Amino acid sequence: MARRKKIYEGKAKILYEGPEPGTLVQYFKDDATAFNAEKKAVIEGKGVLNNRLSEFFMTGLQSIGVPTHFIKRLNMREQLIRQVEIIPLEVIVRNFAAGSMAKRLGMEEGAPLPRPIIEFSYKDDKLGDPLVPEEYIIAFGWASQQDLDDIVALALRVNDFMSGVMHGVGIKLIDFKIEIGRIWDNDFQRLVVADEISPDSCRLWDIETGQKLDKDVFRKDLGSLTDAYTEVARRLGVLPSNVTHRPRPTLIN
Amino acid sequence: MARRKKIYEGKAKILYEGPEPGTLVQYFKDDATAFNAEKKAVIEGKGVLNNRLSEFFMTGLQSIGVPTHFIKRLNMREQLIRQVEIIPLEVIVRNFAAGSMAKRLGMEEGAPLPRPIIEFSYKDDKLGDPLVPEEYIIAFGWASQQDLDDIVALALRVNDFMSGVMHGVGIKLIDFKIEIGRIWDNDFQRLVVADEISPDSCRLWDIETGQKLDKDVFRKDLGSLTDAYTEVARRLGVLPSNVTHRPRPTLIN
Repeated sequence: MARRKKIYEGKAKILYEGPEPGTLVQYFKDDATAFNAEKKAVIEGKGVLNNRLSEFFMTGLQSIGVPTHFIKRLNMREQLIRQVEIIPLEVIVRNFAAGSMAKRLGMEEGAPLPRPIIEFSYKDDKLGDPLVPEEYIIAFGWASQQDLDDIVALALRVNDFMSGVMHGVGIKLIDFKIEIGRIWDNDFQRLVVADEISPDSCRLWDIETGQKLDKDVFRKDLGSLTDAYTEVARRLGVLPSNVTHRPRPTLIN
Repeated sequence: MARRKKIYEGKAKILYEGPEPGTLVQYFKDDATAFNAEKKAVIEGKGVLNNRLSEFFMTGLQSIGVPTHFIKRLNMREQLIRQVEIIPLEVIVRNFAAGSMAKRLGMEEGAPLPRPIIEFSYKDDKLGDPLVPEEYIIAFGWASQQDLDDIVALALRVNDFMSGVMHGVGIKLIDFKIEIGRIWDNDFQRLVVADEISPDSCRLWDIETGQKLDKDVFRKDLGSLTDAYTEVARRLGVLPSNVTHRPRPTLIN
């Protein structure tokens, strides 16, 4: 069997050529990075959990009519996705202050915001994914004004849905990041949610205790990242049978 | 202590005068009715479950910025709400065919719809809450075109959120009904989600088994309504401590 072609390798995922034109295989690595890859580790099982969780969120979004790149999960670490032209933006939706926003504005982490706030970072590792005003995005042609309007509408729907998913299992959705891809049907373009949605790309706090169940556990050395992601997966009923986990006191009873 | 004033008694709830002007106390009865009250029963504990569940959904909606009439739960069967002017419409959002739509169009229950469909019934028990075209609503002045546009936007946000809540706990949101109230701030009007959101007003099917976890259990004599509602509450972690329940095999593991 010929070795399949690697299309792209990122910090947490690898993209391979897919079985059909217009498809790719997305492989989830166990690598964790933070602070623009200044901090690195291999977290056993993270890729398996994120593969499952991203499948769960993407299929949920599709069920409410939000288009995504997801086609199907192939195995523990891989999913089949549609090949898209990634818009070079991180689309960040914030419900509560945290991370770079809390730092930039001197706000306490967890402070409520007047309404969901959407911001954009330009995807460029060398530049550290800098925050950019919408004006830059239009001026440099990364996306059109119409694209941006559509992206904001998509992002708000993702936020409503994901807030609901998390509310249902006792978790507060503090913020999250998505990436958006273009798919061309002849001359028409569709925008779809791409990349992944997982505890790598969301901030998730337990509603009762405030316990962090996301990548901040790794960023801030707050304990076992696998335990945190496993807890999210367990609450959502999407635990892969082949990841070992200890049953833990449930907050759902 | 003076007996408080009853403002309105419906099939499943009673409204009493509230402690402050502009507030009401909403009391959840155990009465279940179906087919425009042709079928009736008292279902022990239903009011307690719906009081809790409606609190859970309404506070969740408020957390994403969807305004509701809910202020706080007072006790097992009562919640404090804002007094609103109810728009005399049942706003029905359907993700899958069921109930009257399935019947009217000869569709199978559970058939997927091309997109969420919103329809309106005129709230009038004597007429059996008849389905009405939007044209009637405007012509008879029940709501303005602007109101309807705002109601549709609200209803779609409620649908995205509630779909998420249910997706997180292995339940498919087939359809639901909400009512909308007006609140006047001086000359300005705000529209808010009113009445209740509960398994009385939603169709909820287990994702895996298709088991009904809503009022259809009563309508169609499919078993214990309390068991069905308790299962929903248990999955969402909102079981009132004073409702007896058997632990049952969880789908969340």
